[in-house]
Amino acid sequence: MPDLRKDPIVGRWVIIASARAKRPHDFDTSPVRQKGRFCPFCEGNEHATPDEILAYRKPGSTPNREGWRVRVIPNKFPALEIEGELNKRGEGIYDTMRGVGAHEVIIESPDHLVSTSELSEEQLREVLWVYRDRLVDLKKDPRFVYGMIFKNVGAAAGASLEHTHSQLIVTPIVPINVWEEMTGSLEFYNYRGRCVYCDMIQQELATEKRVVLDTPGFLAFSPFAGRFPFETWILPKTHSSHYENIRKSEVDELSGVLRQVIAKVESALDQPAYNYIIHTATFDTQELSHYHWHIEIIPSLTKTAGFEWGTGFYINPVPPEQAAAFLREIEVESREQQNIPTRETG
Amino acid sequence: MPDLRKDPIVGRWVIIASARAKRPHDFDTSPVRQKGRFCPFCEGNEHATPDEILAYRKPGSTPNREGWRVRVIPNKFPALEIEGELNKRGEGIYDTMRGVGAHEVIIESPDHLVSTSELSEEQLREVLWVYRDRLVDLKKDPRFVYGMIFKNVGAAAGASLEHTHSQLIVTPIVPINVWEEMTGSLEFYNYRGRCVYCDMIQQELATEKRVVLDTPGFLAFSPFAGRFPFETWILPKTHSSHYENIRKSEVDELSGVLRQVIAKVESALDQPAYNYIIHTATFDTQELSHYHWHIEIIPSLTKTAGFEWGTGFYINPVPPEQAAAFLREIEVESREQQNIPTRETG
Repeated sequence: MPDLRKDPIVGRWVIIASARAKRPHDFDTSPVRQKGRFCPFCEGNEHATPDEILAYRKPGSTPNREGWRVRVIPNKFPALEIEGELNKRGEGIYDTMRGVGAHEVIIESPDHLVSTSELSEEQLREVLWVYRDRLVDLKKDPRFVYGMIFKNVGAAAGASLEHTHSQLIVTPIVPINVWEEMTGSLEFYNYRGRCVYCDMIQQELATEKRVVLDTPGFLAFSPFAGRFPFETWILPKTHSSHYENIRKSEVDELSGVLRQVIAKVESALDQPAYNYIIHTATFDTQELSHYHWHIEIIPSLTKTAGFEWGTGFYINPVPPEQAAAFLREIEVESREQQNIPTRETG
Repeated sequence: MPDLRKDPIVGRWVIIASARAKRPHDFDTSPVRQKGRFCPFCEGNEHATPDEILAYRKPGSTPNREGWRVRVIPNKFPALEIEGELNKRGEGIYDTMRGVGAHEVIIESPDHLVSTSELSEEQLREVLWVYRDRLVDLKKDPRFVYGMIFKNVGAAAGASLEHTHSQLIVTPIVPINVWEEMTGSLEFYNYRGRCVYCDMIQQELATEKRVVLDTPGFLAFSPFAGRFPFETWILPKTHSSHYENIRKSEVDELSGVLRQVIAKVESALDQPAYNYIIHTATFDTQELSHYHWHIEIIPSLTKTAGFEWGTGFYINPVPPEQAAAFLREIEVESREQQNIPTRETG
């Protein structure tokens, strides 16, 4: 008998269809990693991209030339454009505005790596710092209210380039999913006086069955009402609503947690395409007691079909407890002490 | 400059990214139609499926044998199961219940056809009647509150069998998307005293630029804030909230409209995978002034990526006005007068 489970934050129900249960190797996850073609994101090819907005580079090196470790550029085909006013208006019963916003690409390595799991923890730390720097900068623009950082790896997850990169889209309105998370968690807070995410951390630590990785500062677990097989969330244990307020000690630790969790998912599922998304509070708020930033990791294993599009109700064929048990057991090496030579030092 | 457009019903914003605009042939739509393997849905193979719940058959023919025109069976791998009580309960902060519901498959033809566009209008009329009959029957069960009828065609749209079929999933709770549509349209009604869908019909008929097909009883158009390229909606012009209250004259006309719209989409996009979904009101309501049943047709052309999963905000690379202009021009033959021989008559 399948289970129906309700997401305690947005109220979305999920069907956990154990009768359809799948072992990790039952999913078709054609690896999507072809090396060899010209890559505009590789070091030395800076001329092939728009000019950089920010880069962490070797002292004395020249912008838009070699010598960088992490590099941020405008998206060449932006979904939203940075210049201009919003011009909000009606068109009969419809509402519209100009597509003003920011759409940036964060190139995470000068080398042609293809996944977060291939970065050293030191490299990933710099990526996490770049995320923060860009949010802090863009939040100063009064036209913008939200910044969404996400990463698509593999064609099935929507990536069009292979070289490891993330994206930042900054929007002039609050996206509906963010609004639902923020109001859902506010309702919980108003009713119980606690942050729903803090409650989840407590309950997951107490029951242990959905825990994937537990470190002093972070908890990675399979959410009770996960929409997708092997969906995994990473939460900071210390309450905080805005990613951009992350502390240095948290960045130091998160780089290891994020890399290990992704390496576990990749090992379990034979290098699937995946997305990760940083869920954080809106720009126009100060620290909030009811909202808690976190990272959601979604392997691309299932097709979204008519039922999901119509209902917003997901069918997850892998009970989160099974996914967590599986991921928990997988050993992954730390890349903390490997001291990988980089172009800069080598 | 891209446009931001707001869906007037649920408040979801969409980025209409004209800079990324694509002509129909720019999408990769590998046709997904392999004939030849054993098909449990073909006439003569009734032994390979669960026993039928309902069939329209030749007088005197035997259930679960040949002689049917449309056949409804339980899904062999149901997402929800029909027997048992809900057993609603908490698990710490989480809510859960047993996955009780119905999951049925409507086999739309005894022949191995693969798309709605291959059905004759007379066959499609019977499919539309079967949808109604099943909703009327399942709505009697007090455990159930919603019935979602949808169709997946092609692997990219989530179909696992090729033989033309639709599905009905009946749920014990109101799906979040349905709830958002129903409350969104109620808010509009409370504020303006009109049905938002009726307003859309009026505005679309007045401006004409998003109209795909206009018949006496139905309007097919590209929605102003469509999430997906070539997304097309079909609405009955006479206000009605529940699909199961459809009138005979509407069924007669809808079969032609639905078949033609799908044929246009298939012709424009080289036989893409697609979904259609019937959006209708919940079981526990009588006729509602604020809600309006309709069909949404979604070709599977784009990948849902991190940005969409995180924000619920979609990037549509084809302005709905362009999609509508394209679809409007495509001529498709009517299959009304073709008098296709069926196994029954032939």
